[in-house]
Amino acid sequence: MVVLGIDPGFQFSGFGIIKKENNKILLLECGYLKLNPTKHLSVRVQEFYDYFDEKIKKWGITDIALETSFLGKNAQNFLKLGYLRGILYLLASQHKLNIHEFSPTEVKKSITGYGGAQKDQVARVVLQLFPGLLMPAKNDVTDAIAVTLCGTWAK
Amino acid sequence: MVVLGIDPGFQFSGFGIIKKENNKILLLECGYLKLNPTKHLSVRVQEFYDYFDEKIKKWGITDIALETSFLGKNAQNFLKLGYLRGILYLLASQHKLNIHEFSPTEVKKSITGYGGAQKDQVARVVLQLFPGLLMPAKNDVTDAIAVTLCGTWAK
Repeated sequence: MVVLGIDPGFQFSGFGIIKKENNKILLLECGYLKLNPTKHLSVRVQEFYDYFDEKIKKWGITDIALETSFLGKNAQNFLKLGYLRGILYLLASQHKLNIHEFSPTEVKKSITGYGGAQKDQVARVVLQLFPGLLMPAKNDVTDAIAVTLCGTWAK
Repeated sequence: MVVLGIDPGFQFSGFGIIKKENNKILLLECGYLKLNPTKHLSVRVQEFYDYFDEKIKKWGITDIALETSFLGKNAQNFLKLGYLRGILYLLASQHKLNIHEFSPTEVKKSITGYGGAQKDQVARVVLQLFPGLLMPAKNDVTDAIAVTLCGTWAK
């Protein structure tokens, strides 16, 4: 089982890739994709597609893990977040991957034991689990690793 | 110029395909795609992708026309509508198509002369423009033809 967890966004998309073997978990890669806001929306959507298509092939991904999104202040941004999520659903079908969604509360509870945990608390637990991991520059990355971990615990 | 206009939806996606040549317009095809609600969301997203990918290749589409979506009663349905819109943006980039968006008011105003027109009034004008067209079973189709027409009038 090799899980790609993604926290998608048009500014930064944090991601983590974790392999689970005999109850051992190994963080293969983590980081984020930054899309160029000056490019046409359709080009950014394709860059997002191409980037994760390549990761899926490179690491032999079997599962995608995502956090369920909820409407924030800006409905049009929420709709556009749907564009990226749609791409992940397409990739899941094209590569025959399982796709798992977790609510933000489920993710925080699974990681820290407390559903109302702050991003920093999530980050701290993630860093404890992977001692070799330096503090990533963005919480998007630790958030994505958190949802990736939830994916490895899913049936 | 060959315009594919789409009114995307997980129940029905109406579409129209119009060719513009020397100021003459020709309706090449219209209809709707119905996705099977019992299939996994990722499979439906791929069916939507494959269906319009094939139409784009078959008719040599140069432009996509879409109506801008606004948040309705159900935020999660609105997010999922984004999945399908994201697929259309991906297809636009993959096939190097122009993509045009029009607000519902722009579409109604362009077609009927009145931005507050009802769906039936839009349908009537569309049927007058294409006398060979039988009344489609769904307003989704006449709506999609209306947005396709707006696409042919775009620069």
